[in-house]
Amino acid sequence: MALTPKTLPIPSTKTIHLSATSTEYDIHIGQGLLSTLHPRLQKLAGGKSYRPFLITSPNIWKLWSKQVRASFPEAESPTVLFLPPGEKHKRLPAVESLAEQLAQHGADRDSILIAFGGGVLGDITGFLAAIYMRGIPYVQIPTTLLAQVDSSVGGKTGVNLAAGKNLIGSFHHPRAVFADIALLKTLPPLELRSGLQESIKAGIIADPKLFAYLEQNNELIANGDPEALTKVVTASIKVKANVVAKDERESGLRMTLNFGHTLGHAIEAATGYKKLLHGEAVAWGSIAALHVALARKVIDPDTFARMANLILSYGPLPRFKATASDLVALTSSDKKTRSGRRAFVLPTGIGSTEIVYDVTDEELTAAAESMLQTMRATGVKPS
Amino acid sequence: MALTPKTLPIPSTKTIHLSATSTEYDIHIGQGLLSTLHPRLQKLAGGKSYRPFLITSPNIWKLWSKQVRASFPEAESPTVLFLPPGEKHKRLPAVESLAEQLAQHGADRDSILIAFGGGVLGDITGFLAAIYMRGIPYVQIPTTLLAQVDSSVGGKTGVNLAAGKNLIGSFHHPRAVFADIALLKTLPPLELRSGLQESIKAGIIADPKLFAYLEQNNELIANGDPEALTKVVTASIKVKANVVAKDERESGLRMTLNFGHTLGHAIEAATGYKKLLHGEAVAWGSIAALHVALARKVIDPDTFARMANLILSYGPLPRFKATASDLVALTSSDKKTRSGRRAFVLPTGIGSTEIVYDVTDEELTAAAESMLQTMRATGVKPS
Repeated sequence: MALTPKTLPIPSTKTIHLSATSTEYDIHIGQGLLSTLHPRLQKLAGGKSYRPFLITSPNIWKLWSKQVRASFPEAESPTVLFLPPGEKHKRLPAVESLAEQLAQHGADRDSILIAFGGGVLGDITGFLAAIYMRGIPYVQIPTTLLAQVDSSVGGKTGVNLAAGKNLIGSFHHPRAVFADIALLKTLPPLELRSGLQESIKAGIIADPKLFAYLEQNNELIANGDPEALTKVVTASIKVKANVVAKDERESGLRMTLNFGHTLGHAIEAATGYKKLLHGEAVAWGSIAALHVALARKVIDPDTFARMANLILSYGPLPRFKATASDLVALTSSDKKTRSGRRAFVLPTGIGSTEIVYDVTDEELTAAAESMLQTMRATGVKPS
Repeated sequence: MALTPKTLPIPSTKTIHLSATSTEYDIHIGQGLLSTLHPRLQKLAGGKSYRPFLITSPNIWKLWSKQVRASFPEAESPTVLFLPPGEKHKRLPAVESLAEQLAQHGADRDSILIAFGGGVLGDITGFLAAIYMRGIPYVQIPTTLLAQVDSSVGGKTGVNLAAGKNLIGSFHHPRAVFADIALLKTLPPLELRSGLQESIKAGIIADPKLFAYLEQNNELIANGDPEALTKVVTASIKVKANVVAKDERESGLRMTLNFGHTLGHAIEAATGYKKLLHGEAVAWGSIAALHVALARKVIDPDTFARMANLILSYGPLPRFKATASDLVALTSSDKKTRSGRRAFVLPTGIGSTEIVYDVTDEELTAAAESMLQTMRATGVKPS
């Protein structure tokens, strides 16, 4: 007798419980979570009826639709809606189009959205869930390392304006996150390494053990060993979940997650959000931030070197075209600016940080210049 | 020596404090609040610097810009952004356009939006505040009676989809509401009377005294007597604030505010949101709901007559074209439907209600038919 999907055992996974002010939920990390999606959603719904709507991109669906479908009894299979891949679709018209489709399919407050894709798709789907009928539940199934270790956790959702990235959005937490390590098998190696830059960030700001593990297992991790990746993803998510639990709305501590992102975002803006992957831009931004810390002597040259080397060891990082002053000028529209004051995250050692508000444009320009020197020396041609 | 705007005394007003789970704020009702806007915003900001952005429509600004400007020292005058009037602009592209303008003017999380207009403008501005940089503060200065007694209070914000009204939105409470009765002087009489239908609703569902006051002072109120309107607006807002305080997210009690709206929304949909004012559609919807209650004998014929007469006495109400079955078919997309069950609010007496889930299409069709008979007998040509 064949097993029905319902009776498949749920394989053992690591679970991180995120308990914040407004909500709490579990983040599951493991291999093959996809095949148990249906019983997991049933558990989440607590026996109540719910209608699943899965939002994904055509290329991801081509790779994984069989596994997803196999988890559901045919009658309960999710309605699938598509979003073309790419940052350029991360805008309000895409949200409106998906919302119209939800309405046409009769989605209501007892429906649940499933964000099945990378960070952009997760941000859009989370935002759609935040504003459809003033908020409906959703879960995240991140398909990239970057989305698994960063964007799928923490409830930040949103889209871009022409005037800047993520200027439109909501805090809306998923009901659960399923980080299936098996999904990373089909990820291009460059995307994997780029995503690992956010894990390096997690190590730098909050987890010396993760930092050391990344140093010591570079080859295993960068080559996508599932066991090693499970460890890295779990530790990275723990850092993020811990920060979000303590500062859900980014009034303080959560800003530390922004390490490397002030100039990282500027680099993305300077290159039209096209030439570099997010993790690559953050890597260069982190190096610049390290230079600020070094110049201020909040870290010593040895710590600087260990941090910079770890970042570069998960490269090679691509070159890009921008001057230091261009980049500094582009930091002024960052959302982390409040009434003109720019919050800046400095590491004070491996696993510790401080937030300062007095980094001057001159300091930042000098640090960006030092970073650009490293780029000219070590950067490779963008692929 | 001339008085500076800052030193003008704040005239006495009625203040209702709304304390809900997620937030609390004051709703001020009085005459001439506009002239004290600047000191009031300063008080709200608690001495912190803030940048005001006022969102309004050109026609409203033409009438009241002088008073608003006079309240502010010139250097602190709000940046004014315009939204064309009308429900057809209550869509995501209008929100996106305003958000781009905010970003271009450097609005950040320490900015405050001022929604200065009717219900549509308040809904859009509130939603813009909800999603710009994942949420910034705003205040409501409703310029219509409908917006004063209903939409400006309670934190429901949003826009329409092609598929239906208010299908996109957020719960995002204002920091304060300023209901300036003086603004109603320039309101067309028809809009005033239409808005009063929401006050009648408040009386029916929760306030016998307000109900009686509306019965006994019809002429004074409908002719816009400021004292009488202040009483009606205050009592109506109290009903709403009390309900919202107890059930912010509409899991139960708040649904009672939906009395008359199930068929009211259907009538608006059937007439393309053009022929009837919202209050007029709700008035007919209320009469239909009363017929359901009468048929079920949850109200006696005398109570039915008092309620129906009060509604009709603030008419005349316009005729419209739709069959009972058209209207019932249009109720199925109502947001109050959950997993196919339709919540329906029935009055059980003056000032009390019950929510039922078992109203059948047949009952609703019969009630709509009775309402249409009244309409054919008493309805006037739409103006």
